[in-house]
Amino acid sequence: MTGAMNYEAIQVEKTGAVAHITLNRPALRNAMSLQMVAELRGALAALEVDGSVRVVVLRGAGGHFCAGADLQDMAAARMRARQNAPEPSETGVALDAVAQANAQFGALCVAYAKTPLALVVVLEGSVMGGGLGLACVADVALACESAAFRLPETALGLVPAQIAPFLVERLGYSQAKRLAVTGGRLSAANALAIGLVHAVHAPEQIDAALAAVLMDIQACAPGAVAATKALMAKARLSEPASLVQEAALIFSRAAQGTEGLEGSTAFLQKRKPSWASQ
Amino acid sequence: MTGAMNYEAIQVEKTGAVAHITLNRPALRNAMSLQMVAELRGALAALEVDGSVRVVVLRGAGGHFCAGADLQDMAAARMRARQNAPEPSETGVALDAVAQANAQFGALCVAYAKTPLALVVVLEGSVMGGGLGLACVADVALACESAAFRLPETALGLVPAQIAPFLVERLGYSQAKRLAVTGGRLSAANALAIGLVHAVHAPEQIDAALAAVLMDIQACAPGAVAATKALMAKARLSEPASLVQEAALIFSRAAQGTEGLEGSTAFLQKRKPSWASQ
Amino acid sequence: MTGAMNYEAIQVEKTGAVAHITLNRPALRNAMSLQMVAELRGALAALEVDGSVRVVVLRGAGGHFCAGADLQDMAAARMRARQNAPEPSETGVALDAVAQANAQFGALCVAYAKTPLALVVVLEGSVMGGGLGLACVADVALACESAAFRLPETALGLVPAQIAPFLVERLGYSQAKRLAVTGGRLSAANALAIGLVHAVHAPEQIDAALAAVLMDIQACAPGAVAATKALMAKARLSEPASLVQEAALIFSRAAQGTEGLEGSTAFLQKRKPSWASQ
Repeated sequence: MTGAMNYEAIQVEKTGAVAHITLNRPALRNAMSLQMVAELRGALAALEVDGSVRVVVLRGAGGHFCAGADLQDMAAARMRARQNAPEPSETGVALDAVAQANAQFGALCVAYAKTPLALVVVLEGSVMGGGLGLACVADVALACESAAFRLPETALGLVPAQIAPFLVERLGYSQAKRLAVTGGRLSAANALAIGLVHAVHAPEQIDAALAAVLMDIQACAPGAVAATKALMAKARLSEPASLVQEAALIFSRAAQGTEGLEGSTAFLQKRKPSWASQ
Repeated sequence: MTGAMNYEAIQVEKTGAVAHITLNRPALRNAMSLQMVAELRGALAALEVDGSVRVVVLRGAGGHFCAGADLQDMAAARMRARQNAPEPSETGVALDAVAQANAQFGALCVAYAKTPLALVVVLEGSVMGGGLGLACVADVALACESAAFRLPETALGLVPAQIAPFLVERLGYSQAKRLAVTGGRLSAANALAIGLVHAVHAPEQIDAALAAVLMDIQACAPGAVAATKALMAKARLSEPASLVQEAALIFSRAAQGTEGLEGSTAFLQKRKPSWASQ
Repeated sequence: MTGAMNYEAIQVEKTGAVAHITLNRPALRNAMSLQMVAELRGALAALEVDGSVRVVVLRGAGGHFCAGADLQDMAAARMRARQNAPEPSETGVALDAVAQANAQFGALCVAYAKTPLALVVVLEGSVMGGGLGLACVADVALACESAAFRLPETALGLVPAQIAPFLVERLGYSQAKRLAVTGGRLSAANALAIGLVHAVHAPEQIDAALAAVLMDIQACAPGAVAATKALMAKARLSEPASLVQEAALIFSRAAQGTEGLEGSTAFLQKRKPSWASQ
C-alpha cells in the first residue's frame, strides 16, 4: 500500500502502524454515500493485507463524524427499486435496489466489526444513524464534548436495521431498544453513561487522549489482539464451558508462537517487546 | 375498543394514541393476582388490535407500582396442586396448579416484552418480584425517587423464575445474578446506576418527564418502532453478520412503505410527518 | 469436611455456613500455579458436597488478590510441550502441555462460575490476568480502593483466552473487547464504573461490607439461590419465551419444596426462616 490512495469520499493516511481514515464530505457532514461505503470497505481490506498497519483510526472531516445516510443516494435507490425487479444476492435472496444499498452498508459495518486490526473512532459533532452504527463497532470510541448522537431513522419512518445488531452489541438489548423507540438523542455525557463511548474529552485534549490510546494498543501484540477479538465475539453467544478447549488451543498457539516467545523473552530481559517499540 | 372497559384489578384509559393501564389494587400495593394477570393480558391484546393506540403506559394506583405476587392466590394454587394431578399444558408438559399460575404470569411478561406497541412504565413505591419483572420488559422505565426495588423471592424460599430472563435482558447476566443472590434491594438511584430504570425524577416532575417521553415516542413512526423492536430482540442472540440480508429487507420494506414515503416527503417539505402531529 | 485441610497454595477455613478460601502465595502476589489451580478446584468440590457450606469467600493473602499465571509453571509447560506430543483430552482433542495447563485453569473458572454456592470475592492490590477472570465469575465482587486491575496478556504476546468468556459475561462484549485491545488497566473506581466490581470500599470498611453482603446472602434460601443462578445462566443465551414452562416447573418445585414451605410459614408467622437464623 502506498502513502497516497485514490479515494474521493474518504482520505487515508498512514503513520507507522496507524492508518487514519477520514470521512471526507464535510459540506454534507460526511453523509454516507454509496461511494463512501465502497471506499471504506476497500480501504479496510487494503489495510488488512498491508502487513504494517495495526490500528485504524476513523474520524470525520470538518467538525462532524457522520450525519447518517446520504439522502440523494437513498432517493436514487428508491427510484431504481421502482423501475427494476429485485436481483438475487450472494445468498440467493432477491434484493431490490434499496435493500441492496442497505446491505452494502451492513457489510461495511460487519467488516469493521470483524477486522483483526484494532479500531478507534474519534467522534465529534453529528454522530447519526449509520455514523452511530460505526461508532458502536469500534474497539475504542473517544468522543469530544461536542459530539451529539441521534438515531433519526424511526422519526423518518425508517428502521435502523443494519445498525440494530451493533447497538445491541454495544449497549445491551435494553438500552438499544430504548434509544430506537425514543429517537435516540444523546449528549456526549449521556453516551458515556450508557457505554456507547468509552471516554469524553474537551476538544483541546482529544488528540492527546487518542495518542495515549494508540500507545496502549501498540503495547499489545497484534496477533494476540486479533485472536482475542475473535474469541470474544464468539463468547458473546456461547456457554463459557463450551469454549474451554478451543481457548486452550488458542492460548497454546499464542504462547508458543512468535509473539508469545518474544513477549516472554522481553519480559525476562526487562525490555519492551518488538511490537511496543514501533 | 371503547373508552370504558370492564376490568376489576386494572383500569384502562385511552387518550389519543396513548393507553394508560393502571394496576388497581391499591390496598394490597397492587399485588398481582391471577385475575390481574389475565386482565393485563386481555387489555394488551385488545390494545394491540385497536389500531389507534401506539403507546402503553403502565403504572400503579395509590403510590405503589406492584408488590409482587398475591399471596392468597399462591396459597390457593398450592392447595389445588396438592389435590389435583398436573394437567398437560399447550406444549404437552404436565403442569401442576402452581406451575400453571406461574406460567400464566410468564406468558404475561412475554406478551408485554414482545408487544409491537411502545411500552413505558412509571415506577413509584414498591416495585417487587413480578412488578420488578414488568419494569424490566418496558421499553422506557421512569422511576420516582420514592421507588424501592426488591427481589424477595429467594428470601422466601422461592425462585424469581419468570422474571429471571427479563432481569438478564435488562441488567445483563452479572448484575441480575448478583441481585438474585443478595435479595436485590435497590433504591431508585441504584436502579438507575445499573440500568434497571432509565431516569429518576422527583414526584412533582414525573408527569412532565412522562409527557416528554411520550412526545419523543410519538415522533417515531409506529410501524418502524415495531420493526426495530423485533429486530433488536433477534439481534440479542444472533451474530450481526447473519442478519445483514434480513435487515436489508426490513429496511427496504420500511423505506418504500407508507411510513417511509411519508417520512421522506415530510422531511423534504420541512413539516412534521403525519404520526408526529397526533 | 474438617476444619483443617491440607493445602499448600491456598488456605480454607469454615465459619458456620461460610467458607473462606485464601490464595496463599503472598511472596508471589498469589500467582496462580498449577498446584493452586488444582487445590482451588478440589476445595470447591469438597465444599459443594459438604452440606453445611452456603457461601464461598475468595480473597488473597498479603494485600494482593492474584497477579495472574505463575510464570515458572508456564515456562515448564512450554518445555514439556516441546518435548512431548500432544495428548488426547477428555473430548478427544489433542492438547499439548501448554494447552493442557491452560484448560485446567479454564475448568477452574467454569467450576467457580457454575457452583450452586454463592461466591463472593474480595479484591485488593493486584488483580491481573487469571485473577481478574476469577473476579468476573463471582456473584458479588467487592473491591478495596487499593485494587488495581490489569489484563497483561496481549502485551506479553498472549491471549486472555480462558477469561475472555467471563469478561464478556461480566462486562458485555463491548467493554471486554476494549480492555483486551488496550491492555486493560483499571483502577477500582473504573472497575466499578463498568460493572467489573459491585462496590468499592476503604480498607478499614471492607470487612464490614463483606459481613453485610454475607448477611444478605444468608437471608436467601440456598436451594433457591442455586436454582436462580442456573436459570439465569441459561437465560443469557435463550429467548425468554422459550423458558416459560421450564421456569414454571422450577418455581413450582421451589414453592412446594422444603424451602418454599418454610419460607411461607415463616412469613405468616412473622419470624425469620430457618436459613436466615444461622
